[in-house]
Amino acid sequence: MRIDIVSIFPEIFEPVLGGSMLGIAQDRGAVEFFVHDLRTWTDDKHRTTDDYPFGGGPGMVMKPEPLFRAVRTLAAADPRQPFVVLTCPQGRRLDQRLVEELAAKDRLLILCGRYEGVDERVRDIVDLEISIGDYVLTGGELPAMVIVDAVTRLQPGVLASPASAQEESFSWGLLEYPQYTRPASFEGRDVPEILLSGDHKRIAEWRRLEAIRRTALRRPDLLQTASLTDEERAFAERVIAETAQDDEEIHRD
Amino acid sequence: MRIDIVSIFPEIFEPVLGGSMLGIAQDRGAVEFFVHDLRTWTDDKHRTTDDYPFGGGPGMVMKPEPLFRAVRTLAAADPRQPFVVLTCPQGRRLDQRLVEELAAKDRLLILCGRYEGVDERVRDIVDLEISIGDYVLTGGELPAMVIVDAVTRLQPGVLASPASAQEESFSWGLLEYPQYTRPASFEGRDVPEILLSGDHKRIAEWRRLEAIRRTALRRPDLLQTASLTDEERAFAERVIAETAQDDEEIHRD
Repeated sequence: MRIDIVSIFPEIFEPVLGGSMLGIAQDRGAVEFFVHDLRTWTDDKHRTTDDYPFGGGPGMVMKPEPLFRAVRTLAAADPRQPFVVLTCPQGRRLDQRLVEELAAKDRLLILCGRYEGVDERVRDIVDLEISIGDYVLTGGELPAMVIVDAVTRLQPGVLASPASAQEESFSWGLLEYPQYTRPASFEGRDVPEILLSGDHKRIAEWRRLEAIRRTALRRPDLLQTASLTDEERAFAERVIAETAQDDEEIHRD
Repeated sequence: MRIDIVSIFPEIFEPVLGGSMLGIAQDRGAVEFFVHDLRTWTDDKHRTTDDYPFGGGPGMVMKPEPLFRAVRTLAAADPRQPFVVLTCPQGRRLDQRLVEELAAKDRLLILCGRYEGVDERVRDIVDLEISIGDYVLTGGELPAMVIVDAVTRLQPGVLASPASAQEESFSWGLLEYPQYTRPASFEGRDVPEILLSGDHKRIAEWRRLEAIRRTALRRPDLLQTASLTDEERAFAERVIAETAQDDEEIHRD
């Protein structure tokens, strides 16, 4: 997979793309990253990429021409047609399903919007606008890094163990079960005995139930779409009902 | 405000925290950043921060001792009590309301979890677990940067114009209205005439309606909590109904 990123701050990508999992993925040939300075496609002395908004108001708006030029030039640079993404707060909200869709593309071209605004006409050359969440950031650089990280780790050969991708949060549609490592006892806090039992069947059952319990307590919204047996769904409802009862007792006291 | 970050990849923070808005915020004294290497608080020759999970399974789990030591040492380093955040996919989902809560704290201490898992006992020293969205990342470093960016831009004196924070996406509870800058005509695409009219009252009305339209089309879930007049709510419902009708006609064709 090839990923191009266009930004007015190309320099901040290097340590992120070069380090850790992303660097390893590139070394293994699973993905190629190209980071481009949007100013390459300006044509004035000051290399201007933004300008005042028509109609007034605070903030600056990214100009259309450099972004159009960037997309056209980069599209022509490789026979694979890029899927063009604009990071912006008005976009489709990123979730693991969308990550999987993006991970299946041959090539992504990510335009980092400044959050104050991008000229509306730029949307004509964008295949998908993506928001990583309902909060305001300075620019689209961090969202681009988030997309790249999430997409890259799904490329074949990147994760040491493909099971890692399977058992993680959201892949069951549930939050992850509690994890423990050594020491078995730390400052009076003990690891649950079952995890030391060596009984893999019971451990798997315990983990599944704890994942359901945690999801019921923290993110009951996820239960609507999770694949649960009838018995598991009844367990989740019991957890939710018990918490509601506890809350009520606290308020009565 | 003081923000401490604890990570096993401290080096990737520098260009992000030093550049752009975050660097300016620090230069102006609005915020102080301290990035710490978690390995500082290991005590073995290999400076180990993770270990195999009890009960088996893929992936490694972050050990409790270095994180406990980090929090205790850093808490003692400043009279301000830190609000301790763990970035992890099981946490409360970040939104602009949570960003505002965090921005009001004197001091944040962010622990970057590896996404494969953090020993459950670490949760005892954490005030809040935060997830930036329902997708799987390699580690908590990008989420930490996202939190720092969102929180820092709300510190007094950081944004050139406080109006920028007010008029942006999500502050009305709506997506942002379309923005345009020069040229007024670009490759046959014209800026809407009203924005060139100089009539600020009508421009403000147009923007408000376009923000409602865009929200109705893209993120109708946000309308439930947005502050709208009865008339505006009727307009949003009309937009949604018309789109549904268009979809139906397409399917009939």
